[in-house]
Amino acid sequence: MELVVYLAGQIHDDWREQLKQLAEQKGLPLVFKGPQEDHDRSDEIGEAIKGTQPSSIYRDHTASEFNNLRTRIWMNKADVVIAQFGEKYRQWNSAMDASIALATGKPLILIRPESLVHPLKELAQRAQCVVETPEQALEALAYVFE
Amino acid sequence: MELVVYLAGQIHDDWREQLKQLAEQKGLPLVFKGPQEDHDRSDEIGEAIKGTQPSSIYRDHTASEFNNLRTRIWMNKADVVIAQFGEKYRQWNSAMDASIALATGKPLILIRPESLVHPLKELAQRAQCVVETPEQALEALAYVFE
Amino acid sequence: MELVVYLAGQIHDDWREQLKQLAEQKGLPLVFKGPQEDHDRSDEIGEAIKGTQPSSIYRDHTASEFNNLRTRIWMNKADVVIAQFGEKYRQWNSAMDASIALATGKPLILIRPESLVHPLKELAQRAQCVVETPEQALEALAYVFE
Amino acid sequence: MELVVYLAGQIHDDWREQLKQLAEQKGLPLVFKGPQEDHDRSDEIGEAIKGTQPSSIYRDHTASEFNNLRTRIWMNKADVVIAQFGEKYRQWNSAMDASIALATGKPLILIRPESLVHPLKELAQRAQCVVETPEQALEALAYVFE
Amino acid sequence: MELVVYLAGQIHDDWREQLKQLAEQKGLPLVFKGPQEDHDRSDEIGEAIKGTQPSSIYRDHTASEFNNLRTRIWMNKADVVIAQFGEKYRQWNSAMDASIALATGKPLILIRPESLVHPLKELAQRAQCVVETPEQALEALAYVFE
Amino acid sequence: MELVVYLAGQIHDDWREQLKQLAEQKGLPLVFKGPQEDHDRSDEIGEAIKGTQPSSIYRDHTASEFNNLRTRIWMNKADVVIAQFGEKYRQWNSAMDASIALATGKPLILIRPESLVHPLKELAQRAQCVVETPEQALEALAYVFE
Amino acid sequence: MELVVYLAGQIHDDWREQLKQLAEQKGLPLVFKGPQEDHDRSDEIGEAIKGTQPSSIYRDHTASEFNNLRTRIWMNKADVVIAQFGEKYRQWNSAMDASIALATGKPLILIRPESLVHPLKELAQRAQCVVETPEQALEALAYVFE
Amino acid sequence: MELVVYLAGQIHDDWREQLKQLAEQKGLPLVFKGPQEDHDRSDEIGEAIKGTQPSSIYRDHTASEFNNLRTRIWMNKADVVIAQFGEKYRQWNSAMDASIALATGKPLILIRPESLVHPLKELAQRAQCVVETPEQALEALAYVFE
Repeated sequence: MELVVYLAGQIHDDWREQLKQLAEQKGLPLVFKGPQEDHDRSDEIGEAIKGTQPSSIYRDHTASEFNNLRTRIWMNKADVVIAQFGEKYRQWNSAMDASIALATGKPLILIRPESLVHPLKELAQRAQCVVETPEQALEALAYVFE
Repeated sequence: MELVVYLAGQIHDDWREQLKQLAEQKGLPLVFKGPQEDHDRSDEIGEAIKGTQPSSIYRDHTASEFNNLRTRIWMNKADVVIAQFGEKYRQWNSAMDASIALATGKPLILIRPESLVHPLKELAQRAQCVVETPEQALEALAYVFE
Repeated sequence: MELVVYLAGQIHDDWREQLKQLAEQKGLPLVFKGPQEDHDRSDEIGEAIKGTQPSSIYRDHTASEFNNLRTRIWMNKADVVIAQFGEKYRQWNSAMDASIALATGKPLILIRPESLVHPLKELAQRAQCVVETPEQALEALAYVFE
Repeated sequence: MELVVYLAGQIHDDWREQLKQLAEQKGLPLVFKGPQEDHDRSDEIGEAIKGTQPSSIYRDHTASEFNNLRTRIWMNKADVVIAQFGEKYRQWNSAMDASIALATGKPLILIRPESLVHPLKELAQRAQCVVETPEQALEALAYVFE
Repeated sequence: MELVVYLAGQIHDDWREQLKQLAEQKGLPLVFKGPQEDHDRSDEIGEAIKGTQPSSIYRDHTASEFNNLRTRIWMNKADVVIAQFGEKYRQWNSAMDASIALATGKPLILIRPESLVHPLKELAQRAQCVVETPEQALEALAYVFE
Repeated sequence: MELVVYLAGQIHDDWREQLKQLAEQKGLPLVFKGPQEDHDRSDEIGEAIKGTQPSSIYRDHTASEFNNLRTRIWMNKADVVIAQFGEKYRQWNSAMDASIALATGKPLILIRPESLVHPLKELAQRAQCVVETPEQALEALAYVFE
Repeated sequence: MELVVYLAGQIHDDWREQLKQLAEQKGLPLVFKGPQEDHDRSDEIGEAIKGTQPSSIYRDHTASEFNNLRTRIWMNKADVVIAQFGEKYRQWNSAMDASIALATGKPLILIRPESLVHPLKELAQRAQCVVETPEQALEALAYVFE
Repeated sequence: MELVVYLAGQIHDDWREQLKQLAEQKGLPLVFKGPQEDHDRSDEIGEAIKGTQPSSIYRDHTASEFNNLRTRIWMNKADVVIAQFGEKYRQWNSAMDASIALATGKPLILIRPESLVHPLKELAQRAQCVVETPEQALEALAYVFE
């Protein structure tokens, strides 16, 4: 039975690609979905579809209409959500996706470096699993199929 | 992964056909469902199945039993709802489908001409995306698969 | 036991006031809530709180943030929803409130003149009760307490 | 009718106190709940109840058990959630509370300075209202009672 | 803490009155709600509110709009549902109320004479309690407060 | 897209078989599920699995464990429910299945002869469609695919 | 604001009484509900209401109808659930109440001695808080009101 | 139509293997899922993924993160849950899975020896079916496909 995994979180390295390769190596029947990983594309998508907006605040608002559309559709399909937090940026989108997983009964695997233990402590306490690397998250999914 | 799209809204031009062709051109795995587009058929379906009714009010009531059956079944299956509003008619069915999408957590893409901004403002504010043309709605769905 | 009644619908005559007086005359333990009835106030509330917006489309969007806040809070509290439709305007807000009642299991009483039977037929078919006047809606509520 | 308002967000100035005073001045029937505002107390509550833990990571985990208990109980009771974001800290708790409000159908009022428009854009797009100051949030609640 | 009890079922003897008196004697904090017990009134309520209908089938349909309004409002408020079945009539309303209790997580107490064991066996198997008399149902409620 | 149809109701003629043949003739992608149609088998299934019970009341109770298991599994899978009522028997199982469809948002098609209009009036008023024959129910489903 | 606390778990010492006294001493607005604490009464309640049953298995079944009625009503009302496990007995009722709290979004405080860490580890991992004594559970509730 | 069956319960004999073979012999379209059956693996999985923990209590906590991940994912997919209880151990995991099935509307088949009737009586009373052997559970599933 195939599982759909939503990969929330930072888009500043290739951790999603790594996960996909590991899953393939292990032959796990996983389908991965996630946000737009091209940062510029995700910022400009609103104006790309709806045309120039009157200011950057409206440009951002409009981009979010489409980023959220994407996220909501795939989150609704997901059987499990992995959210990775890193040192850079505030990553409120990752926190949003992770929290919506909590509230809708989708098991959440949280990946965070030890340095983020304190600021993420409440979110971590409600996650199903807390690990430090994408490899560990994949091992967790592999365990589901053992 | 295939997505089911419910196309609510006016049935007075071929916008659904346009959307389907665009989706096909782009190779998007979308299945489209929607209301009965033959207006006469949708008005007469009640009497076609249950026989002549005592007055036009009951004729309408009976037709709605079957129109609503159709809508509810496909709305339940939909991953995303597109509702298009136009200048003509009151389109309370479109508003109903759009609002039920809101209330049941299905992402809603609202299509409306600029002239309808004011009367649709509350519905638009709660929609996931608001655009002006079917082409833009399709671009939004294409973005989901990027 | 007190019931909370949300009065959706047109704000162009004093039907809400009538309903309240009738309820008081009959001694029914009803608490009425509803949208902002001062039309200008409801259009300007966004700019009143957040300041001038760059265009009328954003003015409308911003007003709707607060009109929807109000509606959602009281709709969440309501035990029953009454939606009145009239000849004037498109009343998509009324359709939205009525439809959200349907989708969230709140019994809906629809008030509409005979002239609107046809365009409202699908919404009417799913309503719990369909009547033509506010007095009839109140009689329906009185029956609940008999 | 009394409304319960959950005040999520930063605990580094007295904005909650301000809101309460404004509500009292206006005579609004609002009951405010929120997280533990004494930062040290919220960090030490786990060890205060359960005793010393083997390391800071477990100290944090244990504190979160009780902070989340508090938040979940009052969030469940809330009719509306206000989340304020500020420049300092990552405020992932605020994002969690705000997002759980989204996912559970509780109207969300987001307060954020203009400088945070970009990083909060997806969360803002799904909020019911977005304002810049606690005073505006209170005006929004006052509008609900007009 | 007061509990709301919905008394579904036959309206052909005074079993509801008996239950209320027993509850009062025992000092139990129970509020009882139920359908219209005046059979003629329940059959004529549609025409009483909406005027004469074109045939008995529409007369029945219209009466049901208001009977169902009443039932839905009080069932939504109920903490526990008691449904009594008797030898006479088919009592599909009672079966509807009992089954909706099952589907919405409201504990159901079923009262039925031994003669109805066989035809009610599937409904009984899913009820929370099955007894033969209203007195036993009241004892069950008294036990809740012990 | 295939739809799953649960056929609740009487098991005393071959109406299910008729429906299946009509669906096949029309090439409709429908999968039909329903209760055990062999009446004796449905009465004895409890003792067939669990052995002799101490009395007929327990025999009935035990049979219902397995009949309800079957019904609950297929009802959970169903996209639409058809319930047919006839003159014979009390058919409280049919009423239970129909009512659970109402309460769980599954569209209900009710089939009943004119003679049962009065006793079924409240259930009929909440059904999505009310018809008199299985052929009409099938036409309703065919309309969904037009 | 008053909170309702369901006290699941063993009935072999006076821990509930202790909790109530502590809550009173601290002036916490807590209402406590729980199962029947008189063990014999809880075993005999079925026969007390319904008369002698054919065997001990049916005696147990019948008692459970009423014990579960009580539990379900108060669990539905609870804002928070405390479940205490002890060395004696298997306490599957406590596990049932605790797990239903998990599945219905009610925050769960688990009390268990260190000796039960291993067998309760999965339940504990999903609880909101895990403590070792009723006093600690009460401190957790006191923290909610700080 | 294929059904997914979650096999909760003891992992100390090969009852799952027996069930699978019986299902295959009968040609039933069943997919079985369940917990990790290798007891040592299930105890060590936390440290296997996350490394050595500071004490056995944290070792257990960490193992449970992954055991619960597995259970939650497959329980979410299940159409029906079978829980087997035996004489050995306290089996609180089995009770947790069985109870979550109750609370989420998944039909539960409980398998328990006669010796456990009394301690399991409340759980049994809310199960859909109660049997004594895996063979009987399989017969129940076979009946669903008759």
